[in-house]
This record gives sequence, structure tokens and C-alpha cells, in this order.
Amino acid sequence: MKINANFANLKPSYLFRDIAQKTAEYKAAHPETDIIKMGIGDVTLPLCKAAVTAMEKAVAEMGNKETFHGYPEAFGESFLLEAISNYYKKEMGVRLDTNEICVTCGAKEDVSNILDIFSADNTVLIPDPVYPVYYDTNVMDGRKINFISSNESNSFLPLPDENTKGDIIYLCSPNNPTGAAYTRDQLKIWVDFALSHDAVILYDAAYEIFVSDPDCPRSIFEIEGAEKCAVEFCSFSKTAGFTGTRCGYTVIPSELSFDNTSLLSLWKRRQSTKFNGVAYIIQRGAAAVLSDEGVKQIRENINYYRTNTANMMNTFDKLNIKYYGGKNSPYIWLKCPNNMKSWEFFDLLLTKCGVVGTPGEGFGVNGEGFFRLSGFGDVNRTLEALQRIQKLFE
Amino acid sequence: MKINANFANLKPSYLFRDIAQKTAEYKAAHPETDIIKMGIGDVTLPLCKAAVTAMEKAVAEMGNKETFHGYPEAFGESFLLEAISNYYKKEMGVRLDTNEICVTCGAKEDVSNILDIFSADNTVLIPDPVYPVYYDTNVMDGRKINFISSNESNSFLPLPDENTKGDIIYLCSPNNPTGAAYTRDQLKIWVDFALSHDAVILYDAAYEIFVSDPDCPRSIFEIEGAEKCAVEFCSFSKTAGFTGTRCGYTVIPSELSFDNTSLLSLWKRRQSTKFNGVAYIIQRGAAAVLSDEGVKQIRENINYYRTNTANMMNTFDKLNIKYYGGKNSPYIWLKCPNNMKSWEFFDLLLTKCGVVGTPGEGFGVNGEGFFRLSGFGDVNRTLEALQRIQKLFE
Repeated sequence: MKINANFANLKPSYLFRDIAQKTAEYKAAHPETDIIKMGIGDVTLPLCKAAVTAMEKAVAEMGNKETFHGYPEAFGESFLLEAISNYYKKEMGVRLDTNEICVTCGAKEDVSNILDIFSADNTVLIPDPVYPVYYDTNVMDGRKINFISSNESNSFLPLPDENTKGDIIYLCSPNNPTGAAYTRDQLKIWVDFALSHDAVILYDAAYEIFVSDPDCPRSIFEIEGAEKCAVEFCSFSKTAGFTGTRCGYTVIPSELSFDNTSLLSLWKRRQSTKFNGVAYIIQRGAAAVLSDEGVKQIRENINYYRTNTANMMNTFDKLNIKYYGGKNSPYIWLKCPNNMKSWEFFDLLLTKCGVVGTPGEGFGVNGEGFFRLSGFGDVNRTLEALQRIQKLFE
Repeated sequence: MKINANFANLKPSYLFRDIAQKTAEYKAAHPETDIIKMGIGDVTLPLCKAAVTAMEKAVAEMGNKETFHGYPEAFGESFLLEAISNYYKKEMGVRLDTNEICVTCGAKEDVSNILDIFSADNTVLIPDPVYPVYYDTNVMDGRKINFISSNESNSFLPLPDENTKGDIIYLCSPNNPTGAAYTRDQLKIWVDFALSHDAVILYDAAYEIFVSDPDCPRSIFEIEGAEKCAVEFCSFSKTAGFTGTRCGYTVIPSELSFDNTSLLSLWKRRQSTKFNGVAYIIQRGAAAVLSDEGVKQIRENINYYRTNTANMMNTFDKLNIKYYGGKNSPYIWLKCPNNMKSWEFFDLLLTKCGVVGTPGEGFGVNGEGFFRLSGFGDVNRTLEALQRIQKLFE
């Protein structure tokens, strides 16, 4: 039996392990230090009341023969599909047929699994720096990978030019890790490029709810022509604090086709073969999040996280430390002061402030010299971290 | 962009759609008929008390900032890994390190996803008839597929001979759809074959809890040498009625390697890249199922389903209708009387008895002339169905 030899081409991913190890070592040597973690992109606020109530009810249903639920619908229960479709209509003015939405365990899974329906004989285009999953999953499949530089000269929002080549294009907006968000006009350039090059755009909208700039779309389907070239991935993880609850969805327009084959039908064949749906209890929680009451509650949580990014922006403005993101994103992507490298700045923050962040270099070569701070922490702890940073750089 | 051309080689799967359609048409024409469904392999009893209580508590934890859980551990929370390890030790006398267990959303997902770590340049060996997922997933990857006949001459328990060829061997015991279960001696033959042919066995143990014959193992790791050639998939779906709750796990021995590469390390790389773990709430429910109290409760449910298979076996014994399965399985695989074909028998049962089952032909060419009945229904409804069948054939 032969293993998949492409796995040998994967670079070991030690970023978060190295961060954890350095942090633990420092803590062991300096047990008195009160360490504040602003590195990981995990949420900290509890699930909203609407989700909790709905899941409590669903658990009770599962314990009763008359209301018990067996195998879920492969592509999502109709109550959740309708809730998602309504959310798109109300929040973004985008009309989706429930048939075009597939509910899953999360965007990470979908972004990875979608590759099953594409030939290994495609060239992939990935922005650098970026969420490492796009790269690793394509290495596993042995696809040719091109990078497009995301850097200060394009404000971390790269656009295609005559040299850009790719059949499968990854876009993540608002971006992880840079926090940059495309405007409608910029995204239209990508849509036009994909349409004229017979390419597909894989659009990761996991952070859509953080968009505050009216010029920035929350769904690629706000852009004309996207229904003929784009697949959109979204998740309840960041929208509703579902990182530990696991629910997401993929939107594939029914008219999207390549090689005269509907991508939606390929995806549904893939999903019905390899996937058995999302737990009933979780789907009830997700649908409750999208109710009027639920949306109100999750917006309160998002505003809480926005307080963190606002406080960070305030501090870095005062200190004249350059940064990207924040406005449409829970992440601040700051330029390490004094031309420090990412890991140098990591060490400095850890040893002088007891603050842990994420070195930008871990997300790609263009991330060198940058640093990601997350707004998903506790407001008071984040303020405390910022005060320490301010003291250091003042 | 080129799609995965292998998808065009998939046969459309209309089995359960055709069953549903024929049933609906008959019901429309004969609205007075009280139809009893014994076709689908879904459970009907509610989740056990231990699981419900644990999930209620977990939902409450998720609604509270102090006890909230973000991203799960990629391979399963330690409380669940330890519960699974204990279950193997207590129930099967198999020692597993918690490091060798990976928790997921279900066995269907795992059986499919594991293929990512194998080269497309392997030959697959699949028993016929069998669970269609094994076949379809390999067609998607473009692997060469050999079948081994599972039929009356081998009591639906095929064994390898000098002509048997396969690098990746699927075994499902107790089997879906035939209900047949390998003995220790038979499984040892497969293990020795795999070891001497450098093949991997993908062992689907989703129905292990139904084994009642002490000669039949519940885990392939009860067989010496399996730790050097086998991967085992299991699930809470049938064990604990988790079809709509979604949790399973894969066991890969740490010493299992091919091409000098540990399969466990490849699988963990695959999972940590493409998967973000199972919802905390669900993992709490699964762990509770494996507590002493939980195991007692799920065994009561299994005994309830066993009443159904016992009643079926009784009826078919009386009617001199030949069948396989039942003893170690929730399925009865009966030989259609009077040399009827699978779909002929389906029509007969539907129109004369109002009973819906699954034509064996839908699981492979050797399934022609056979019929699957499920023991997962209500005891009284199943008895009613059997009385109607008895009346017809007496």
C-alpha cells in the first residue's frame, strides 16, 4: 500500500506550537508574570441566550421518542436553510435559494473538502500571507500553487494583473490574518478576472459580520457576476461564537458550472457520499442565532469585540505604530516598530509586557515584520495589555 | 478550471430515492394503507438519559463565560478519548493509548476522509454487496477497484485466496447490509493476508455492539497482528442512537506504518488541517454514553432492537424463509422466497403487506435476490409487519 506522497511536501506547521512553547518556557522562568494571550483567533464570550435556549430544547427533544431526530438532512434542515437565506436577504440584500446552501460542521472543513470536486490538474492562486489551510490542503492534493503578494504596497488587498495565473482563486475578506477587507469595486475586479479566465473564486467570508465599512461587501454575491464564478464559505464560529459548537455553510449558486457541470451538483454528490449532516441540536442553535432576537444578541457580542479593536487602534494611533485591519475585522495587523522582525517583536512583547500575539511571518513570507493581535479577548484584559504596551513604547 | 473528472464515473445512487418514490406513489393510490417502514438503517429510540443529562449540562456551560469552550481539541477532548479507551479495555479487552484514537463526526466521514492519506495509485478491494460509500469514495479518487464476492457459498463472509488482490481492503463486520459477522479465525486469515501483502485493512466496526457470538470479535484489534495492518472505524450512531447527534472515532495503532511513514501521523496531519474537532456538547454526550450508567442504558436500547431481530428470525424460521444476519446485527438479510428478484419482493411486500424494506440489489450484484430488513423500528410495529408477512406466506 502506497501512502499519498504529497504529504511529504507539507511543511511542518509549528507556529502555534512554537508560540505555546515559548510562552510556557517564559512563564516557567518568570512565574510571577501575568500573561495576557492575544494570539489565538478563538472567541471568549459565551453562546447567546437564543442559541442556548434552542439547544436546551433540542437536547430534550432528542431524549424523547416522539420528538427524537435520526439522520439529519444531508445538506441541512430546512429550518436552518431558510434562516440562512433570510439572513442573506435582510443583512446583505442577497437572494439565495435554500437549495444553494449546504450546512456543514464549519468553514475550515468546507474550504478543504470542496477541493474533492476539482481536478488536481488546476493551478491554485493564494494570497500571501493567508490562513494556512488553503495552502496545505492543495499541497496534499499535489496542485500547482501560485502566490499573489499581499503587502503594504497594496494595503494587503492584492488585485490581479496580466501576470496573475490561477484556476482556483482563494480570497478571504475580511482577511485572516491582515484584517483587510475588499471594497465592492476591488472585488468586482476579481470577479471579472475569474469570469474572463474561466477560474473559480473560493470566497471565505468567515469574518463577514465584522464589516462596518458600507463600501465593503459582506458576501461576494453582492457583486454582479459572482454567481457565475464564486463559491462562498461562511461559519457561525466568529459570527456567533460557535468555534466549539461547530457549524458553517457553503453557498454555491445553481448556475455556477465548469466543464458543463454544475458545481452545486458535484458538491452535493460529494457531501451526500462523504458526510452525514450536522447534529440536530447544533442546527437548532445555529438557526436560533439567525432569528431576530439571536441577531440582536450576537451583535452585542460583536460590539464587545469591537471595543477591543477600537482600544487597540487608539493605542497604536497614539504610539504611531502602523497597523491594518481592525475596522472591518477582529484582527489588528500591526507593523512591528523599529523594523523588528515578527519573532523579535513576539519576544519583546512577551518579555517586557507579558503579552502574547502571533508573529505574522507564520502566515507567509509577506507576513515578516508584522504581528497579529486578536480582539476576541476580555475587554479589561485587553486594556491591561494595551497599557503595558503603551508604557513600553511611550 | 477543470472539475474532478472521476465524478463522471459515479453511478447515480437512486436506491433510497426509488424506495421513497415507490412508497409515496403506492400510498397516494392507496391512502388507507398503514405503511410500516423497515427499510432505512436509522435508529428510532431516543438518546439515553446519561447522554441527555450530560448534553444539557454542556449546553449550560456553553452559555456561561466562565465555563464556555472554544475550539475543541483537534483529535478529541481527553475525557472522551479516555472513555473510549476504557470502553475498549472493559468491553473487548483491547488496550488502546488515547493518542491512537481520533474523535470525529462519524464513521461515514472517517471511512471517506482516510483516503486522503493514501495514494490514488492503490488497488482497492471491496466486498460485494456492501455499504456503497466504500465504492463511491474510491471512484471519486480514481482508484482501481476489485470486488470480492460475498454470497451464500461463503455465508456472506468472503475470505482471500491466491487470486485476491488489493492494497486497501474494506471489511465491515458485523456487515451492512448482510448482517454477517466474521469469527476470530476468519478475521485472522484477513489479517495474515494483509500482513503478507503489505495491504491495509479498513475495518468498519460501526455495528460492533450487536455482536452476541463470543467467537466473533467486536474490534479487529482483538486479532494478533492487526496493529500492524488495520485501521478501525467506529461510531456512536448505532451504539448509542447518535445518527442525528453525530460522533464517531478512528483508531490507528501507533506502530502502523507504510512507506516508513506512520499512518497515525498522516491522519493527524490530515485532520488538523481539514477538520476543527467535534462540538463540545456532543463530545460530552458521547462520553456519558460510555460511562457505566450510560453503557447500561444503551444496552437496554440494543436489547430492544434485538427483540425486533429475534421476532423477525422467529417468523422467517416458521415460514422457512432463509436469512442471514440478525444474531450479531440489527439487520436481517433474507433470501427472497420463490426465487424472486429484490425489487419484485419489494413490490410484493409493499402492495400485499404495506411493508417497506431495502432491495439487496441496491448494495451490489451479489445482493440480487436478497432483501434487507432493519431491526431499528418500534417493537409493536415490527410485530405487526411480521404478522402481515406471515399471513401472506403461510
